[in-house]
Amino acid sequence: MARSDDDRTNSLGVRLDTTRKLTLDLAAPLSDADATIQPHPDASPAKWHLAHTTWFFETFILRDHVPGYRLHDERWPYLFNSYYEGEGERHARPRRGMISRPSLDEVREWRACVDKALAASLPSLPTAALALIELGIQHEQQHQELFLTDILAAFAENPLEPTFGAADAASCYSTEPLAWIDGREGLVEIGAPGGFSFDCERPRHKVLLHPHRIANRCVTNGEWENFIADAGYRTPSLWLSEGWDWVQANSIERPLYWHDDGSHFTLAGRRLLDRAAPVDHVSYYEADAYARWAGARLPTEAEWEDAFACSDPMIGHQLDTAGPVLAKSGGGPFGDVWQWTQSAYLPYPGFATEAGTVGEYNGKFMCGQFVLKGASCATPRGHSRASYRNFFPPSARWQFTGVRLARNA
Amino acid sequence: MARSDDDRTNSLGVRLDTTRKLTLDLAAPLSDADATIQPHPDASPAKWHLAHTTWFFETFILRDHVPGYRLHDERWPYLFNSYYEGEGERHARPRRGMISRPSLDEVREWRACVDKALAASLPSLPTAALALIELGIQHEQQHQELFLTDILAAFAENPLEPTFGAADAASCYSTEPLAWIDGREGLVEIGAPGGFSFDCERPRHKVLLHPHRIANRCVTNGEWENFIADAGYRTPSLWLSEGWDWVQANSIERPLYWHDDGSHFTLAGRRLLDRAAPVDHVSYYEADAYARWAGARLPTEAEWEDAFACSDPMIGHQLDTAGPVLAKSGGGPFGDVWQWTQSAYLPYPGFATEAGTVGEYNGKFMCGQFVLKGASCATPRGHSRASYRNFFPPSARWQFTGVRLARNA
Amino acid sequence: MARSDDDRTNSLGVRLDTTRKLTLDLAAPLSDADATIQPHPDASPAKWHLAHTTWFFETFILRDHVPGYRLHDERWPYLFNSYYEGEGERHARPRRGMISRPSLDEVREWRACVDKALAASLPSLPTAALALIELGIQHEQQHQELFLTDILAAFAENPLEPTFGAADAASCYSTEPLAWIDGREGLVEIGAPGGFSFDCERPRHKVLLHPHRIANRCVTNGEWENFIADAGYRTPSLWLSEGWDWVQANSIERPLYWHDDGSHFTLAGRRLLDRAAPVDHVSYYEADAYARWAGARLPTEAEWEDAFACSDPMIGHQLDTAGPVLAKSGGGPFGDVWQWTQSAYLPYPGFATEAGTVGEYNGKFMCGQFVLKGASCATPRGHSRASYRNFFPPSARWQFTGVRLARNA
Amino acid sequence: MARSDDDRTNSLGVRLDTTRKLTLDLAAPLSDADATIQPHPDASPAKWHLAHTTWFFETFILRDHVPGYRLHDERWPYLFNSYYEGEGERHARPRRGMISRPSLDEVREWRACVDKALAASLPSLPTAALALIELGIQHEQQHQELFLTDILAAFAENPLEPTFGAADAASCYSTEPLAWIDGREGLVEIGAPGGFSFDCERPRHKVLLHPHRIANRCVTNGEWENFIADAGYRTPSLWLSEGWDWVQANSIERPLYWHDDGSHFTLAGRRLLDRAAPVDHVSYYEADAYARWAGARLPTEAEWEDAFACSDPMIGHQLDTAGPVLAKSGGGPFGDVWQWTQSAYLPYPGFATEAGTVGEYNGKFMCGQFVLKGASCATPRGHSRASYRNFFPPSARWQFTGVRLARNA
Repeated sequence: MARSDDDRTNSLGVRLDTTRKLTLDLAAPLSDADATIQPHPDASPAKWHLAHTTWFFETFILRDHVPGYRLHDERWPYLFNSYYEGEGERHARPRRGMISRPSLDEVREWRACVDKALAASLPSLPTAALALIELGIQHEQQHQELFLTDILAAFAENPLEPTFGAADAASCYSTEPLAWIDGREGLVEIGAPGGFSFDCERPRHKVLLHPHRIANRCVTNGEWENFIADAGYRTPSLWLSEGWDWVQANSIERPLYWHDDGSHFTLAGRRLLDRAAPVDHVSYYEADAYARWAGARLPTEAEWEDAFACSDPMIGHQLDTAGPVLAKSGGGPFGDVWQWTQSAYLPYPGFATEAGTVGEYNGKFMCGQFVLKGASCATPRGHSRASYRNFFPPSARWQFTGVRLARNA
Repeated sequence: MARSDDDRTNSLGVRLDTTRKLTLDLAAPLSDADATIQPHPDASPAKWHLAHTTWFFETFILRDHVPGYRLHDERWPYLFNSYYEGEGERHARPRRGMISRPSLDEVREWRACVDKALAASLPSLPTAALALIELGIQHEQQHQELFLTDILAAFAENPLEPTFGAADAASCYSTEPLAWIDGREGLVEIGAPGGFSFDCERPRHKVLLHPHRIANRCVTNGEWENFIADAGYRTPSLWLSEGWDWVQANSIERPLYWHDDGSHFTLAGRRLLDRAAPVDHVSYYEADAYARWAGARLPTEAEWEDAFACSDPMIGHQLDTAGPVLAKSGGGPFGDVWQWTQSAYLPYPGFATEAGTVGEYNGKFMCGQFVLKGASCATPRGHSRASYRNFFPPSARWQFTGVRLARNA
Repeated sequence: MARSDDDRTNSLGVRLDTTRKLTLDLAAPLSDADATIQPHPDASPAKWHLAHTTWFFETFILRDHVPGYRLHDERWPYLFNSYYEGEGERHARPRRGMISRPSLDEVREWRACVDKALAASLPSLPTAALALIELGIQHEQQHQELFLTDILAAFAENPLEPTFGAADAASCYSTEPLAWIDGREGLVEIGAPGGFSFDCERPRHKVLLHPHRIANRCVTNGEWENFIADAGYRTPSLWLSEGWDWVQANSIERPLYWHDDGSHFTLAGRRLLDRAAPVDHVSYYEADAYARWAGARLPTEAEWEDAFACSDPMIGHQLDTAGPVLAKSGGGPFGDVWQWTQSAYLPYPGFATEAGTVGEYNGKFMCGQFVLKGASCATPRGHSRASYRNFFPPSARWQFTGVRLARNA
Repeated sequence: MARSDDDRTNSLGVRLDTTRKLTLDLAAPLSDADATIQPHPDASPAKWHLAHTTWFFETFILRDHVPGYRLHDERWPYLFNSYYEGEGERHARPRRGMISRPSLDEVREWRACVDKALAASLPSLPTAALALIELGIQHEQQHQELFLTDILAAFAENPLEPTFGAADAASCYSTEPLAWIDGREGLVEIGAPGGFSFDCERPRHKVLLHPHRIANRCVTNGEWENFIADAGYRTPSLWLSEGWDWVQANSIERPLYWHDDGSHFTLAGRRLLDRAAPVDHVSYYEADAYARWAGARLPTEAEWEDAFACSDPMIGHQLDTAGPVLAKSGGGPFGDVWQWTQSAYLPYPGFATEAGTVGEYNGKFMCGQFVLKGASCATPRGHSRASYRNFFPPSARWQFTGVRLARNA
């Protein structure tokens, strides 16, 4: 191995350690029971996230690339495979909350064993395996965000309103006035330019932008209150047909976790709404209806990406250390809340899945979902980039999802 | 009114008569009971189609533009409004099959009255109303197609397998060999170039095409049998995640209306599959899985539209006269089956809905649906054009929906 | 055959004719479409009742006992068998409303053919077959009542509120004052004493009655209004646990078919409530809650049967001729409304099912249902008797079901 | 207070201690996570049982009868009230598994505080409160049984098959031959004769028994295997209509927890079926179908009670100490498995609920349930008696429910 390879491996090892440790830190405030429950079928138990990310490394690195490695427990892959058909049968997703054993401590022990084996094998891994470690780190970062949104969903189910941690009251930042940035027009390039990316961000390719403008900041809680006060949730003409059905079937009247007394439930417990902060926990349906109410529209993913391609994705309210993250005012495009786009999550021209089981990573979800851009307060710093394509179904609300407006020019 | 206006009005009147008559002809073989039942919540009773298209003209032309017009029956708009929130409360869609009264004959009588009032008012209608008549004609043509697919769905529910009409056995056309047409690359224009179009086809705008090729014809029943024989419906790696869930939850093993003995149910009753004819009644999930199995993909809507922008949409196996339509071999891009694209049904750059209630026509469905291009054997001839954007959810199968493949070049 | 046998056969033939004719009369005001629709899975289309009762005779008499008889149509038994597992596969009950063919006229023609064959075969039928004809008559009478309740349910779905026929406004009978009849105490006999009975009414057997009193008449609409006004539907302590769940899940606020303006929907259309008439279309849950509110309870089936064993079941507001029946004031125990008892529908001591497929008639439903006694305005006169055991699940409301109170003495 | 009252109070205190301690012992092998999960809406988390039984004492004794008592935590009654409408709003039953806080240890601490307060208040409690303590003990014993059946249900969801404890392999008892005991005929008395009883067992009253015989023992696993081998689960004529629907809708092929390899899952893990032991975890539907297959029937509750009125309910395989209970061969009427009767759970003649909120204890469930008699291996010894009326819906299988046959004589 050449020196630069060595360096790269060392750097990878450091990032692996940092990432693995942050996940453990996230779990620190949780009891075994907290970590076991599953609030709804789309959210997973905290313990499951700890285990699944470990399964990923054990399976695709240790089992596949380390001769003689023996699985920590042969029965656990069945429990902690998420959706990889190529890895065989697995435990039903909506029943993940039934797995009181192995305990949180046993899962932690598994993590320790796998981490040790990874560290030992790292210097001698083939390049293909190193790429999979990189993928595993990115994968674990995604689950760190899900860990936070899922434990928020779990605690929100408990009338005692447990807190994940304490946070200061919102500071008195005022909101930046809404302004419109002129977007570029004509042929531009989007997609991953190099460096790590998921398969769905590739290949980089040209797209045609039509004249448009994009908002300088996200919609705030205060602005959302105006939408509510103006009967936004009771005016069918503002909504997509499917969205209006959803509003009525679920008696939707405000963002998820909002109460009717001006407070909302957060990882730091019940708090007064910060009117200056970006609204979060809204669905695509709500984002789209709000935009229509505001005489605007949602941006396309290409418009968003081109607008912020030169912004530094390391800057913003993102996840640095374990704790009760919150969306705040004063941030930039990367952080606080993911921003819904009007673009369906579909393959880029020339898209090809990775070879092997990890090829199931993204491509098979390209149906019925919308792309979100940016990053949120729960996104580990370093994980985001302009070409990133997050995606969720239009009714999803338990993520930190918000709204940035756009307009035709 | 200038002479050319007169001519245009006359021509409109002729087309109105022709269209209204074809709907009646379609209903001719049906009993009152046939025309009343609703096979599933997404399909409507035949009688409802006759009534709803009449409601459209009575509401948006006669009520809104003919002074002194009195509604035929004030209680019927509640029954026959489809989804226009702006027109107020309406009968629940899944309960349309409960409306045994008014009878088919009473609905026919309503049609006759409305037609007479339309004919009388036509010469003096303002231009805006004439545009609404054009819209009403196009709207009724859409319902003619739905009439046929819905009555097929209804008859398919009956173990006695009623037929809508008799048809000759398939002729012995052999299938054209599959070939790949080179698509254009670079900036092209799509969208309605002029003439009548729905709002969702506008504005005409530039899109960027990437190198690609598109198939010269649709996938045939014979080819689909190969897919089945090769375990296509039992191989999860071929399917979108949502598609695989759908296959398993519904025990899907073959296209809708296929039996396991080489026959399928059609408007002409149970028939042997014509192996040379385009496969029909497949969902987006199936189309997508087939394409993956075939080492290809579905075309984008822009690729399809640009490829066939110069084809004559009047040519092909389409609906000319009432009868049991069937997909056949030997047709072109317009006819036999609608062709699924991989494009989500989303607004074009600069899209704006029509003013007023008719603005609910298309825009509010831009979520969770895929675009289909071309036309089918049930599409009234004259209704289709290259810019046409048909759309259905990915699980829909009761339309005449088929597959044309594409590939990256 | 002895003379008395001849007489008996003649008498049977007359009753068969009368019964078969009444069913046809009931269908007279219906269109083909009216007769085809199915308002909910527990109710059947009117046409289905005409066909099913004919299937019963064709199957169990003509097919089984008439040498050389050929089925009118071999495919129809699949459609019109109700629930007899012994007769093989059958059309799914919730899809009965999909059978637009055969038409009402074709079913009428089937009836005529079967009636003719029955008449021809009657003189030479073996005794066992004569007993099945008697069973078939009783069976058809049951379906006459269901015909009326099901067509009421169907018309109630139509916002146009079609009427089955015209009826006079309620006369001004005042209500008899509520009084309590002393029931007998000690060992009494219940169950069919002889004559025709269903298997579930047998064997006649002794039961022990505890001291009790039973109301002289049924609860009236006016009394029910008091229950509503006293928050009966909003007071959980009045309800069974399952009943309270049902009230909340279905937002129940009043009897089925009642509107909030003092009117209710009937076979004679929308009418003002007759405050003196027995309340009808209430569930067991409602009957039980009302009784608790009134400081009373529902009678047991034995208490009811013993109380009215000597009443003439031919007297009362029952079905004589086809038309829009209504519950009225001034009737006795047999007629107007079936009366819920607190007795679960269970086998009598020594109960045995009939041999053969008709043994599925009653026994297999002995779970999850409550017994109702008496008769209703939709019960054909001559069909009822004190030992009769009608039964429905506790949530059923679309029958003419009402309340007679009882008390411990 | 007279001496005998003192004695009675002392004895009550001892029984209270014993009962409270057994519940704690049952929880000993469980982790916080084990105790938190809820396997299905009808089963509760183990922690919930510990908390709910404590809530009962805190509410109905300490809060209502001990002046100055302050609730341990004012927010917990909302969480741990089961179904008492009189006690106000409460946490939704199907969401009990979301309550990761309070932790198992916090609930244990609550128990300790309440136990201490109970002990301190016991000498000075009024008689009415002493009766409620007795009720609370009986109530807690019921929850001890539910604790065991619910934790079995929870562990059965985990593919790792956790065990609640270790148990010896089945001893080689052979099964007693099936024999028929002649039941009494004529008027007998049933219902609670004195001593503690639940309201639903009262009043003691006369019933009439018809000639019958009852089996000397329960149906065994070995006999059930014969039923399966004889296509018992595939023969519709053996089943109630509702039972057959249940079999088909749920693909039922064997008792709950049986695997297809001759093993079943138990509190002691996966074990070979003990063919001599009573079959358990069967529904009423299965019990009824088995009886029909065996040419027998289920006993009525009166037949069962009269047959075993003189048997000592302290004798049998019941719960003495915490551990993995199992049904075994060689037991008597009280123990191993509850025995389904054909009697619906309905009020006895003269039944009256208790005054106050505890009056919701039993009466409001008298609909849609069947009575079970005897006791099971999970019933705390001392809790059962001949007049006891256990009850469950006909589809319930997660209790230790089995079958004793009866016959007409």
